[in-house]
Amino acid sequence: MRLELDRRASVPMYRQLAAQLRERIVSGELAEGYRLPPERELAARLGVNRTTVLQAYQRLKDEGLVASKVGKGTFVTPAGGAGARPSPGTIRTIRDAGVPAHDGTPEPSVIRPPWSVLFSDYSNRFTYHDIAEIDRARRGGADGRVIDFATGSPNPADIPDDLLRAVSLEAFASHEFDGQPESPIEGFDELRALLAEHMRTRGVACEARNVMVLSGSEQGIDLIVRAFVNPGDRVLVEQSTFFPALQTFRSADASIVGVPVDADGMRTDLLEGYCARFRPKIIYTIPTFHNPTGTTMPMERRRRLVDVARRHQCLIVEDDAYGELWYGGNGDGDRPVPLAGMENAGYVMYLSTFSKTVTSGLRTGWVAADPHVIARLAALRRMVDQHTSTSSQRICLELLKEGRIAGHVRDLTAAYRRRRDTAVAALERHAPQGMRWTVPQGGYYIWVSLPDGVRALDLLARCRTLGVTFMPGGVFDVDETDETHIRLNMVRPDARDLEDGIRLVCDAVHAMTR
Amino acid sequence: MRLELDRRASVPMYRQLAAQLRERIVSGELAEGYRLPPERELAARLGVNRTTVLQAYQRLKDEGLVASKVGKGTFVTPAGGAGARPSPGTIRTIRDAGVPAHDGTPEPSVIRPPWSVLFSDYSNRFTYHDIAEIDRARRGGADGRVIDFATGSPNPADIPDDLLRAVSLEAFASHEFDGQPESPIEGFDELRALLAEHMRTRGVACEARNVMVLSGSEQGIDLIVRAFVNPGDRVLVEQSTFFPALQTFRSADASIVGVPVDADGMRTDLLEGYCARFRPKIIYTIPTFHNPTGTTMPMERRRRLVDVARRHQCLIVEDDAYGELWYGGNGDGDRPVPLAGMENAGYVMYLSTFSKTVTSGLRTGWVAADPHVIARLAALRRMVDQHTSTSSQRICLELLKEGRIAGHVRDLTAAYRRRRDTAVAALERHAPQGMRWTVPQGGYYIWVSLPDGVRALDLLARCRTLGVTFMPGGVFDVDETDETHIRLNMVRPDARDLEDGIRLVCDAVHAMTR
Repeated sequence: MRLELDRRASVPMYRQLAAQLRERIVSGELAEGYRLPPERELAARLGVNRTTVLQAYQRLKDEGLVASKVGKGTFVTPAGGAGARPSPGTIRTIRDAGVPAHDGTPEPSVIRPPWSVLFSDYSNRFTYHDIAEIDRARRGGADGRVIDFATGSPNPADIPDDLLRAVSLEAFASHEFDGQPESPIEGFDELRALLAEHMRTRGVACEARNVMVLSGSEQGIDLIVRAFVNPGDRVLVEQSTFFPALQTFRSADASIVGVPVDADGMRTDLLEGYCARFRPKIIYTIPTFHNPTGTTMPMERRRRLVDVARRHQCLIVEDDAYGELWYGGNGDGDRPVPLAGMENAGYVMYLSTFSKTVTSGLRTGWVAADPHVIARLAALRRMVDQHTSTSSQRICLELLKEGRIAGHVRDLTAAYRRRRDTAVAALERHAPQGMRWTVPQGGYYIWVSLPDGVRALDLLARCRTLGVTFMPGGVFDVDETDETHIRLNMVRPDARDLEDGIRLVCDAVHAMTR
Repeated sequence: MRLELDRRASVPMYRQLAAQLRERIVSGELAEGYRLPPERELAARLGVNRTTVLQAYQRLKDEGLVASKVGKGTFVTPAGGAGARPSPGTIRTIRDAGVPAHDGTPEPSVIRPPWSVLFSDYSNRFTYHDIAEIDRARRGGADGRVIDFATGSPNPADIPDDLLRAVSLEAFASHEFDGQPESPIEGFDELRALLAEHMRTRGVACEARNVMVLSGSEQGIDLIVRAFVNPGDRVLVEQSTFFPALQTFRSADASIVGVPVDADGMRTDLLEGYCARFRPKIIYTIPTFHNPTGTTMPMERRRRLVDVARRHQCLIVEDDAYGELWYGGNGDGDRPVPLAGMENAGYVMYLSTFSKTVTSGLRTGWVAADPHVIARLAALRRMVDQHTSTSSQRICLELLKEGRIAGHVRDLTAAYRRRRDTAVAALERHAPQGMRWTVPQGGYYIWVSLPDGVRALDLLARCRTLGVTFMPGGVFDVDETDETHIRLNMVRPDARDLEDGIRLVCDAVHAMTR
């Protein structure tokens, strides 16, 4: 066996040796069972240190190409044998019908890879409850319309077309924006500064360096999980919560624990015990206008949450997707201050988005956190999407400049407040006994508790035939067993259908309790 | 202990029981060492099946809240004890200076979380070689300019400003685009159809249902890894390759094996052996105008690669980021057909992007693959960024319509070809003995092999003082040990600096060999 090492090359000698042996083994030149020269002998022959040969052999062993037998030497392993670390749970030998075997016999010309075997274990377990999308695609009641309480995004009629057109045309006509320049990973400086300024109006101490622009706030959850979660880490969440967040935690093999909730959100009185017991890495929470329950955590709970988490060195992910949509102070209390605005909020990573106030088509959100966190998330993001679309960033920048977005949000929340009042009045008028609901102070959602014996999925099936749809509570439940709640997005249907929709749901419930 | 189970509720009885016991344990009401009632006894008391109690206790055991002692019963465990699964490699007790302990003593008012302890193991190992960004931020030679061969994106002067402005204004003025509507996850149908049509011009059988629009082609690698890679799965790559792809595979705990390359790209003659030995899940390859080596795989190797991978049921990720930038046929051979265009290419997942032909600010790319793959990637993408920015998609759609982009690409590749000729002529004129380089048929990169004794990082340090920068080969090397190559992006510097830049690099090499 001829081996040539280049002493002057910068590649370490043991790597050169391993590479040459590897090539001969995989090519079959050194066949199964071939005994490599004893380490001392080869070292002497090549004029290298014995450690060099030891290291090279060890590397090949790690790769499964050779194996040592005590007292007998080092041998080339069988091809297709020890070389592969089989994936737990994946049986690579199972094949779909019609897929050829490995033996090189002639194959049919159309090849269908055995996808079910090839997909990762995680993605095979992955589920997504897209009831809303399915229902939008179906034709609904007698006239083919569907009254949609299911979808979690704004009614297209509430998207500010004229404003978006005006700012887009302004942005793209400007020579400042020639060539749609690449953005820094963290986003354009001017946009980060405007977002920080906006955060300060919400009571959060924030500078541009605390902000990273995201391609939607969900991306923030994904990046935070990569940055912080080791397999097996515990994550505390509200017992019912935003479903994609649960998926993201599961994808990192985190262990999710639901904390009980009541009409004021997460039961922070229990939190000390949960932290001591479970030593969570992260608490993921939606304290304001909660999805799906519509609750808002009072100030006292916010302070306690931040305090308990800090004492346990537990991170908080504050998802504030709906926080801008406060219906105003008349009987609805004060405007909630984000967790990020509490004292000692250094453990809080705040997420928000333009998806709920403007349009989710922009795919633009942001995270506000300690600059150490921003730096880490930015480094990881290089392998995801590098930065948020330049054109989307530019549109958001124009929307924030001179407070243009503020007027739209003011009008929108006034309209939403009226719809909330309409929806609640309709519930009061039509709901049968045993049906209860939250009255949200902002955001999109009314959470309805069904009377005994009425199951959410049965009700959904019935309502679909009537041309009305909603999300069943089980979708949001950590244990996926909740069958007694439904979520109504009261701002999604056309305003004129709101009362009818609520009445149809109530009548269906009534019919099922008889 | 008062326990109340609701027989009519849809939540299973054992979950109700577990939830009530859990709450009492974490609140401390049932203290450490408390003995739960024997299963039979509690079952009888509650009037439920013994299995119900068994299941509830098992759940609490899984959560670490209780433990059984054989023959003695089930006891509440100590708080902060068995409850947590510690993360491997993370020592939660290490704290940064100034960070308070857990004991509830008064803290200073400014809290700095111990980030280095909190970050995930993976992200602590993560590195990113952003030499280009660092060098762009520095001031270069005597006149403060830097001749930039390092950055992997187009020179701003080559971005088609007027075309982008025209199509943007057209798109956003149109009432069709009112409200920047939400897109399907896979992208707007019209854009998918145009991309499929474009793929067909490249020789790939492709329909709209084979295409998903991505927020850059890197996102495709990330989604494919989630969809297919289990921890420990093997991935074959060219020995030097696109660095973020390596990071993404590592993030999924894949095991990466480099396949040797030569002037025609991956050594497909060795591939059968590598597949038999390593049983890879995925081969990631850049067959056309390779990054960083500038090589192009000949047809015969392409056929063989597809054939070997298929027989081993191994997926191929074809990264074709540069494939549009073919310099044309004069002496440069035929236009390369993508792997996705070979016979029996069912295992190929094709990725490309607008970043190299137009601007990376668009953050828009695409994947073309079997509809089963598209469906799986789309499901996973819901938890990432949902879909690509509506405005970016609309701009790309306008660019493709009526072949508008084609004229730009034609002009661009003609200019790039001239620059390649200039760069190669400059190398021939100035390179000292022992320096060798590839002559690319398209794309961005010339791969230079340095003479004996000249290390890439030493050369980079010297060149920086002269106001010229490039990427050292080690950044791309699977083993991170390559010190004998450098990558020159010959299309990034201003055209007038090209010859000077090459001369500066060659002179520096020359000086270091004396």
